[in-house]
Amino acid sequence: MSHAEPVKVEVGLGERAYDILIGSGLLARSGEEIARRLPGTRAAIVTDENVAAAHLDTLKAGLEKGGIQSAVITLPAGEKTKSFAHLEEVVDGVLAAKLERRDVVIALGGGVIGDLAGFASGIVRRGMNFVQIPTSLLAQVDSSVGGKTGINSPRGKNLVGVFHQPRLVLADTQVLDTLPIREFRAGYAELAKYGLIDRPAFFAWLEQNWGQVFAGGPARVEAIAEACRAKADVVARDEFETGDRALLNLGHTFGHALEAATQYDGSRLVHGEGVAIGMALAHRFSARLNLASPDDAERVEAHLRAVGLPWRMADIPGELPDADALLGFITQDKKVSRGALTFILTRGIGQSFIAKDVPPSEVLAFLKTSHPATLKASHPERSKRSRSERSKRSRSG
Amino acid sequence: MSHAEPVKVEVGLGERAYDILIGSGLLARSGEEIARRLPGTRAAIVTDENVAAAHLDTLKAGLEKGGIQSAVITLPAGEKTKSFAHLEEVVDGVLAAKLERRDVVIALGGGVIGDLAGFASGIVRRGMNFVQIPTSLLAQVDSSVGGKTGINSPRGKNLVGVFHQPRLVLADTQVLDTLPIREFRAGYAELAKYGLIDRPAFFAWLEQNWGQVFAGGPARVEAIAEACRAKADVVARDEFETGDRALLNLGHTFGHALEAATQYDGSRLVHGEGVAIGMALAHRFSARLNLASPDDAERVEAHLRAVGLPWRMADIPGELPDADALLGFITQDKKVSRGALTFILTRGIGQSFIAKDVPPSEVLAFLKTSHPATLKASHPERSKRSRSERSKRSRSG
Ligand SMILES: NC(=O)c1ccc[n+]([C@@H]2O[C@H](COP(=O)([O-])OP(=O)(O)OC[C@H]3O[C@@H](n4cnc5c(N)ncnc54)[C@H](O)[C@@H]3O)[C@@H](O)[C@H]2O)c1
Ligand SMILES: NC(=O)c1ccc[n+]([C@@H]2O[C@H](COP(=O)([O-])OP(=O)(O)OC[C@H]3O[C@@H](n4cnc5c(N)ncnc54)[C@H](O)[C@@H]3O)[C@@H](O)[C@H]2O)c1
Ligand SMILES: [Zn+2]
Ligand SMILES: [Zn+2]
Repeated sequence: MSHAEPVKVEVGLGERAYDILIGSGLLARSGEEIARRLPGTRAAIVTDENVAAAHLDTLKAGLEKGGIQSAVITLPAGEKTKSFAHLEEVVDGVLAAKLERRDVVIALGGGVIGDLAGFASGIVRRGMNFVQIPTSLLAQVDSSVGGKTGINSPRGKNLVGVFHQPRLVLADTQVLDTLPIREFRAGYAELAKYGLIDRPAFFAWLEQNWGQVFAGGPARVEAIAEACRAKADVVARDEFETGDRALLNLGHTFGHALEAATQYDGSRLVHGEGVAIGMALAHRFSARLNLASPDDAERVEAHLRAVGLPWRMADIPGELPDADALLGFITQDKKVSRGALTFILTRGIGQSFIAKDVPPSEVLAFLKTSHPATLKASHPERSKRSRSERSKRSRSG
Repeated sequence: MSHAEPVKVEVGLGERAYDILIGSGLLARSGEEIARRLPGTRAAIVTDENVAAAHLDTLKAGLEKGGIQSAVITLPAGEKTKSFAHLEEVVDGVLAAKLERRDVVIALGGGVIGDLAGFASGIVRRGMNFVQIPTSLLAQVDSSVGGKTGINSPRGKNLVGVFHQPRLVLADTQVLDTLPIREFRAGYAELAKYGLIDRPAFFAWLEQNWGQVFAGGPARVEAIAEACRAKADVVARDEFETGDRALLNLGHTFGHALEAATQYDGSRLVHGEGVAIGMALAHRFSARLNLASPDDAERVEAHLRAVGLPWRMADIPGELPDADALLGFITQDKKVSRGALTFILTRGIGQSFIAKDVPPSEVLAFLKTSHPATLKASHPERSKRSRSERSKRSRSG
């Protein structure tokens, strides 16, 4: 447990610029860091039951040390919480606490809480101050940075929300120690994503040092800081996702389709696992289209396998819908533009790009060859091996 | 029914700049005007039952002439529609129509529909294109301009929403002919407000020409255009209401308290009527504080009386809560900052200013002297006259 000075990453958004602090033990300093930036503020903490049990008292004490009083709104954990009903509940809780525009909503939790509380803070009184205290690895390297907030609709994930930048992000790397290992691994997929998008040296560093990132200590802080720098760069270039920011969706078109295909059943697939498989598929698909070398796809698959992440559709427990149905999920996805398919493809590790007009027929053909049903038919024992790998993974989790 | 070229008012918001077109017969040109600015767009029209009955077919035909297909979402009329439940309904309707970010949500209705549809368009896919087609006078001169959108909470009006600028506002002055006269008058209060804020010549012009504004024709177009110019100026100076924009709240602190005190019962008081009384009270209160001459308050009261608007609390049918309770509604209002009261006061016609730290004790004393109970006790026949004026007003409506 190190309490060295935190690493600071600045998100350069002009008037809306803010700091991300990454370090061990930041919850205890939260009051000081927030009060410095928002003097005289009062707070409403939004959190979920799991995170509240582990970290709420530490946060409340940290806020009090900075003289910040806080109301608490605790919600059930899980993706279902990103709903209109819970949005209304948070909005009402913030209003009940009589907070004004200059007061602050604090999200203490993973991406679910961050997205929901961020959305609520963006619409109460047409926009209040907001601070992210991400407690999952995914939230620390991805969802807490960049100002995308939102909830799900019965018609699709994240279809409703606002861009609302936080005033500060406090990523306390120590809180990750209570995170279930499976969630940690899922977040690691998004961390590795930045290497695959445009930081090949970072990916190579992770191939060498991933064990220490899992173990904690300075390597974890450094990896999270690098991920935040990568995301902050993209966000500063394209705050409202009209261009470049789409690169962050590497792995997500396939990943979302798999999440939908498994009915968002987290016991089968959590988001980061979908992204892991999606990234591997994006590299394989790029190789199939002769854009990248199959060696790069191999390297990605090997690294995901090494850390214990699923990397192919066959790693998902239970039956999957067939390739046509999977394509259906992709074309329903929000990144479909006027019927043409937009994908993030790659020319190799760290060389991702936005490909518009990918022919659906190519995607379908690829999905067919990658589908577990096809693999099982052609390589019966390979599919068996995948199953035993899977149970190893869940034993280690 | 004149079909001269519409008047154009530009809202100067840089990247988010847009035109307001004001003229008779604009619904028929809607497709052309929208398609010119948003080529290839599809649309979802949000409207209410009253407005749909009178104007939906004309709008749909106008859109089709410009090659724009549209889905329609029709809601019940009235302030209660600005709720989370109806927000969710509109969001779902827009998603059901499979609209993308570059497609457009069109609000066809009064301020209720504009606020609700604007909010929905601001959160579906984190912000879609939005066009306002205001059909009430209040919406044409006020709510459709400036990008404030939102819904009500059980804890207060307009407490939840976003800033989301439209891409175009089409104010068809001809559609106002189906508006109930009482609603027209209520909107006229907001129109006159701009004169009282900082355009004394406009107020003087209205004193002379209000009859022609009610009658229709070029004076109506010119008055609405001047109101839009006034609002656009304020909005361009302070898009996110961190300063000057608060001037637009002239009459609204008292007005909101009266709306709350009458439980938002539109049969007793509609918003614009509350604003009319509120503006008269703001001028009277300023005179009482020796900021302005009582002659100016008299002029405001006389003009409101001339057009048939209520101008004092005694004009509200039914019993009102006492002065202490009214002050309670004011201090609960959102313009309360850290316990001090912010009011828009005036130094005379067209010389309004933002007064912070108005002592609640002064407000209370003023409310006591202006309260119908006090007036009745001291001038019994004056209160009788007000009742007969009221019934005249409702007969002409
Ligand atoms: N806004 C964005 O830019 C963005 C980006 C990526 C993902 N997301 C969203 O993020 C969500 C996924 O985030 P997530 O994976 O953090 O999910 P999550 O918030 O559901 O957290 C995962 C689980 O871990 C628990 N948890 C979190 N921190 C913990 C801790 N320190 N100790 C113990 N338990 C802890 C939670 O209670 C939950 O059960 C999705 O809804 C996704 O859409 C948003
Ligand atoms: N966003 C802003 O900046 C802003 C500013 C001022 C007011 N507002 C909001 O505006 C709302 C009040 O607006 P409103 O007065 O237009 O109310 P409204 O939308 O309820 O319209 C008033 C009534 O007139 C009917 N109507 C509207 N146009 C008609 C037409 N052409 N023919 C026949 N009937 C018609 C409606 O159906 C309704 O019954 C309030 O909710 C207020 O909070 C917003
Ligand atoms: Zn993701
Ligand atoms: Zn108003």
